[in-house]
Amino acid sequence: MGGGSEHVLVKQPLSSQFLELPEGVSSALPGSIHRGICYPKGFVAGATACGLKASGRGDLGVCVVAPEWRGKAASSVVTTRNSFAAAPILLTRDGSARHLVGVAMNSGNANACTGDEGRRIAKSMRAEFAQFLGVPDAQAGIASTGIIGRIPNEGFLLQGIRDACSVMSREGEGAFAESILTTDRFPKSWGVDVDLGGETVRIGGVAKGAGMIRPEMATMLAVITTDADISPEQADVLVAKAVAATFNRITVDGQMSTNDCLFLLSSGASGVTVSEAMMTRLGFGIEAVCKRLALMMLADGEGARRIARISVEGAAEENDAEVAARAIADSPLVKTAIWGGDPNWGRVLSAAGAALPDRSFPQVALAMAGVQVVEDGTASHLTVSETESLTQVMAGDEIDIRLDLGVGDSAAEVFFSDMGYEYVRINAEYHT
Amino acid sequence: MGGGSEHVLVKQPLSSQFLELPEGVSSALPGSIHRGICYPKGFVAGATACGLKASGRGDLGVCVVAPEWRGKAASSVVTTRNSFAAAPILLTRDGSARHLVGVAMNSGNANACTGDEGRRIAKSMRAEFAQFLGVPDAQAGIASTGIIGRIPNEGFLLQGIRDACSVMSREGEGAFAESILTTDRFPKSWGVDVDLGGETVRIGGVAKGAGMIRPEMATMLAVITTDADISPEQADVLVAKAVAATFNRITVDGQMSTNDCLFLLSSGASGVTVSEAMMTRLGFGIEAVCKRLALMMLADGEGARRIARISVEGAAEENDAEVAARAIADSPLVKTAIWGGDPNWGRVLSAAGAALPDRSFPQVALAMAGVQVVEDGTASHLTVSETESLTQVMAGDEIDIRLDLGVGDSAAEVFFSDMGYEYVRINAEYHT
Repeated sequence: MGGGSEHVLVKQPLSSQFLELPEGVSSALPGSIHRGICYPKGFVAGATACGLKASGRGDLGVCVVAPEWRGKAASSVVTTRNSFAAAPILLTRDGSARHLVGVAMNSGNANACTGDEGRRIAKSMRAEFAQFLGVPDAQAGIASTGIIGRIPNEGFLLQGIRDACSVMSREGEGAFAESILTTDRFPKSWGVDVDLGGETVRIGGVAKGAGMIRPEMATMLAVITTDADISPEQADVLVAKAVAATFNRITVDGQMSTNDCLFLLSSGASGVTVSEAMMTRLGFGIEAVCKRLALMMLADGEGARRIARISVEGAAEENDAEVAARAIADSPLVKTAIWGGDPNWGRVLSAAGAALPDRSFPQVALAMAGVQVVEDGTASHLTVSETESLTQVMAGDEIDIRLDLGVGDSAAEVFFSDMGYEYVRINAEYHT
Repeated sequence: MGGGSEHVLVKQPLSSQFLELPEGVSSALPGSIHRGICYPKGFVAGATACGLKASGRGDLGVCVVAPEWRGKAASSVVTTRNSFAAAPILLTRDGSARHLVGVAMNSGNANACTGDEGRRIAKSMRAEFAQFLGVPDAQAGIASTGIIGRIPNEGFLLQGIRDACSVMSREGEGAFAESILTTDRFPKSWGVDVDLGGETVRIGGVAKGAGMIRPEMATMLAVITTDADISPEQADVLVAKAVAATFNRITVDGQMSTNDCLFLLSSGASGVTVSEAMMTRLGFGIEAVCKRLALMMLADGEGARRIARISVEGAAEENDAEVAARAIADSPLVKTAIWGGDPNWGRVLSAAGAALPDRSFPQVALAMAGVQVVEDGTASHLTVSETESLTQVMAGDEIDIRLDLGVGDSAAEVFFSDMGYEYVRINAEYHT
């Protein structure tokens, strides 16, 4: 009833051909899966099971800037644009989200479509969190994920916030990462070091899956932390850029949920301020963390077997490239073909041609997993060994697709997951 | 290899709550499934198996206005706007499609992405057909469906046209209906009588499934015939209106293929000319035929278990209503929920909210299969019996969903099929 989690924790994937670390950015404790939001200095986290998940698993987590650094804290938040956004999202949008010193997140109940009572409970949740932190309500961030249309148990939420806050420590990041999961198969965390001209700052991140996941009406939730000493204005710039290049470039099923949100919290605890010249490099670090979390979401997409990148090149303008890339990434025909390991390039072309109608692309070229299948607008004649090689690469974990429209110089890329029986099982077999 | 058909012929559905016959329109031979394109006077049809389908089933059909009526013939064609449209489509677009006296259609090979050679073969196919009919090339229509990216066998096509033409008769409509099928489970035909102020004209129609169907890169193909004596200009008006209200209001998976097309052919053999005053009524008849064929396509959608109608009302403008309705109809989350018989209204709201972002709909209301699940922006408290009744109606063949945005007076409706394991099987398990 309360949206019991069914996640089975498996090890998160540690590498992807699609993730290249830019210069100056290096993985924290390579090979570890445990570093995340408390890797940067000045953060503590905690979690508890407050009763929202019937399974008894963790369902409420808090992550805050340690008291001694709150004077330096800055934040930026990106929320869903869904017009039926959940009550906590409305609060976060309404409040000033640039001076948050912490965020409390619950799973098990999305507090969406819950009307006035839901909004009252969200306010009460935020007030409890703010009171515990000793800050004004507007400095306390909240987010929810889980089943929609049911009033969450206020007592559980408030007690959960008190309990999670009372166990906060630098070691709490793992419990936090698990507490926000719904049917995710693994927690998603990462941390990196960024070299800002000789001085090192740290970035950590945690996320739960994109795509709307059974039994909850789920959501992408993410928290990115850094100990760089940045202003709220800098935080806004960094987040906007990183989200545009990563979370906004992935799709599980083209759906934007009622509860999606991402928080960037900075503690300033490294003592390293960030000059204009160093903003780019810090941005690379934040983008790298976001991209890895985004790719992990895809790999954990609903029943996903493979992830893929579609790169559209040679477009007349960037918007065309993006429209075509998104149409291909969201095409159920392309997704099921990839799930089946089928190099069905006709579906790729058709999705692009439908998304950019009434044009002419006589020079179109298409490569699937490195094999040129269309050239100059005509299907290539593949040799037997090319066909065999294509079948083999299509069976891999990651598929690279490159479409050259041949009419210009603009390009865009989108990452996506495939779609198979498990997607249907997850989304069809649960009965609300 | 050649796109063998795997259709198993089952009886086509004969009724739908979504189909109401307007005044003056009545079903030809109620209960019969065999009346179609030759029900109107002045048409003959024929079909053959020319070898494009490895299965040996019919794969080439012709439908023509009988020689004595060709002087009165008029036509109108609607083709896909996909920028990678197939060679036959490009020919039909290029040629004058207002004086067609017949159409030849093949299944088994779409002749798409086949470059110059494909265009040459399409021209040759059209020339052969025109020669047999004794008319200029521009008066012969052609269309193809089937696997894409492979050059069709020209000899098969030309011999097929000759063979199909040589067996044409008024009884040929059934064989034609089967010859255009790919993995459709049943042929789709219908005929109606329309009373135009005391005089009767007839309308017939045939179609094959929407959605891109294994193993072919398939397509919606349709032919509508009438013995009303209309001008090409009247044909254009009638087709544009009927398609907008029917075929353009259905979605299996949101994909517009490289080969979609619809032909309206009139013979004038009823001797009944159509005044401006009677155009509306004739339009109702054509729309009724198109709508029933469209609903049959949905019922035969790839693995579809149910069909559904989403009506969006109370929108600020019609475009908003249509955007929301299409987003709901194409949402894989909504489709899988309906397949599972799950009244998961949260997914309906979320799809609408994502399609119309950054708005406010505080009075939103939603009814699933007649049960009010959201009122005034808040989930309804359903009684046990209401919940049971909801579960029961969701298990039916046809689901009606009504979303009232509560901000205006505009409305739009879209019909769609659900999505389940069979969709994945059909689309993932075939290997090109």
